[in-house]
Amino acid sequence: MPEIVQCVPNISEGKDLQKINRIVEPLRHHSGFKVISVEPDKDYHRTVITLIGDPNQMIMPLINFYALAAKEIDMNLHHGEHPRMGAVDVCPFIPISGITMEGCVNYAKMLADHIAYMYQIPVYLYAEAASNDLRKDLPTIRKGEFEGFKDKIKDPLWKPDYGQSEIHKTFGVTAIGARMPLIAYNIDLNTADEKPAKQIAKYIRQSSGGFKYIQAGPAYLEDRGHVQVTMNILDYKKNPIYRIFETVQMELKAYQLEITSSEVIGLIPKDTLYESMLYYAKVHQFEIKKDISLEELTNLSIRYLKIRDFTKEKIIEAHL
Amino acid sequence: MPEIVQCVPNISEGKDLQKINRIVEPLRHHSGFKVISVEPDKDYHRTVITLIGDPNQMIMPLINFYALAAKEIDMNLHHGEHPRMGAVDVCPFIPISGITMEGCVNYAKMLADHIAYMYQIPVYLYAEAASNDLRKDLPTIRKGEFEGFKDKIKDPLWKPDYGQSEIHKTFGVTAIGARMPLIAYNIDLNTADEKPAKQIAKYIRQSSGGFKYIQAGPAYLEDRGHVQVTMNILDYKKNPIYRIFETVQMELKAYQLEITSSEVIGLIPKDTLYESMLYYAKVHQFEIKKDISLEELTNLSIRYLKIRDFTKEKIIEAHL
Repeated sequence: MPEIVQCVPNISEGKDLQKINRIVEPLRHHSGFKVISVEPDKDYHRTVITLIGDPNQMIMPLINFYALAAKEIDMNLHHGEHPRMGAVDVCPFIPISGITMEGCVNYAKMLADHIAYMYQIPVYLYAEAASNDLRKDLPTIRKGEFEGFKDKIKDPLWKPDYGQSEIHKTFGVTAIGARMPLIAYNIDLNTADEKPAKQIAKYIRQSSGGFKYIQAGPAYLEDRGHVQVTMNILDYKKNPIYRIFETVQMELKAYQLEITSSEVIGLIPKDTLYESMLYYAKVHQFEIKKDISLEELTNLSIRYLKIRDFTKEKIIEAHL
Repeated sequence: MPEIVQCVPNISEGKDLQKINRIVEPLRHHSGFKVISVEPDKDYHRTVITLIGDPNQMIMPLINFYALAAKEIDMNLHHGEHPRMGAVDVCPFIPISGITMEGCVNYAKMLADHIAYMYQIPVYLYAEAASNDLRKDLPTIRKGEFEGFKDKIKDPLWKPDYGQSEIHKTFGVTAIGARMPLIAYNIDLNTADEKPAKQIAKYIRQSSGGFKYIQAGPAYLEDRGHVQVTMNILDYKKNPIYRIFETVQMELKAYQLEITSSEVIGLIPKDTLYESMLYYAKVHQFEIKKDISLEELTNLSIRYLKIRDFTKEKIIEAHL
């Protein structure tokens, strides 16, 4: 079984499409992995790039990608809505098939070692690759951001895992790590009032007593004229989508509101949709096969979770 | 304002009512506090005793109570559904009025000091009285149970807070502490199969991804011929009963099962029932007043949460 990972580097450039293209384009000309998506965001001034394939084939092109980002991006000139500390702000490896988390940690370290040595970019290993508990959480590492790291990096507590205790003057620093697939999932409500979404986000998120692997908040979509509960599901095996969907629906009853639709941002693993559809199959007593096609799974997910703008291309396995 | 606490010792005897009576009866003949309830459970082989009143007046009678439990109960002969490590398994002090948590911690230490010194019973301080983070959580302390403690107590990590590093040969060890009011709440299922209860307990408890302040497990009630999801709600303000009840109900649908009834062990604060009834009032659009009587609140709770064997005397405020 070949090793397949998802790799999602985030770069601190979301406006200049030509610049983004100069950094990303070389990634497209390799065998063994594919560039699945390139998603620039102007407000965040950040671009999320998604690769899928053989991690062994990714390492050399990723080293080159870091070099190009270092050449194109000067963090001293960067300002955006999203917190950031480096030109390539973060680069996680995510196990998809034929590889363990430990395997991904090893690839993260291999990449970290090279870019620290070759380009003097300090690296923090994060999430499952973290060298201590304080470094598991990316927002904790990133605190102070690019500007603050000039001092933060001198603190013995924040000595980089690779490279010297001094930032790269234009690149800053970077976080490389390994983690489980994270699902960005949003639930749309039939109201423009932000209060119920805010309240329900509080009920379901870990930080205020909710489910352990849920981060959640309210968001008003000006374009669409309604609010949503916007979420990260950090461990979809422990907190399956159906449980979140049904709990939000239950809480909404007190507001006489309903879920009109939901959406998945980025990609989603097949087995999390399968697990959720298994719940509905048991409730409504229909059969669902372990080897269900991606088309059927897509249709069931649209039906029971009301996912909008959803096609089978949103499922990771469609790209393997 | 007089100091009022709730004190809820649990003893490892739930079958022999005469024996239970011999241990508990002397507590009834003191001024300054009342025995509110004595709840033996045959399947758990455990009795929960609830006292309310002046903690200062409770200490001497509680020392005597520990002596009687030591005399009557031999843990070598004890087997029940509920995990346990001592004849008096646990004894928490809970602030109700006119006293801080710190005040309760002091009473816990006073009791602990006496029973370790007088009866050679090793004591672990737990919850808010814990001497380190590992001891905050009662299930973590209790792991290994009575049988395992013969070895566990020799581990320097598990040196008792009071008393020698050797169990009392028939009593075992005990946990004494101070904590916020905790709700012991169980949900009855219409099945004798333990699997669904085990699965759902896993879904809702913090340790495996569920709600932050929920501890849960399955239990088979031989007496009644069905299983239940047995829970502690550690912070009822963050994890209200209705949310747990409705989430369990949602999960049960996948098993074609239902909640037949639920039960509250010990006492429950008025405001948690009020908060939960507020949810149902909003869902079913009836009015509920902040100064609702305890009788009305009891009736609504029986109706919407299906609480069995429930009277207003189960509400703390009925005894103040």
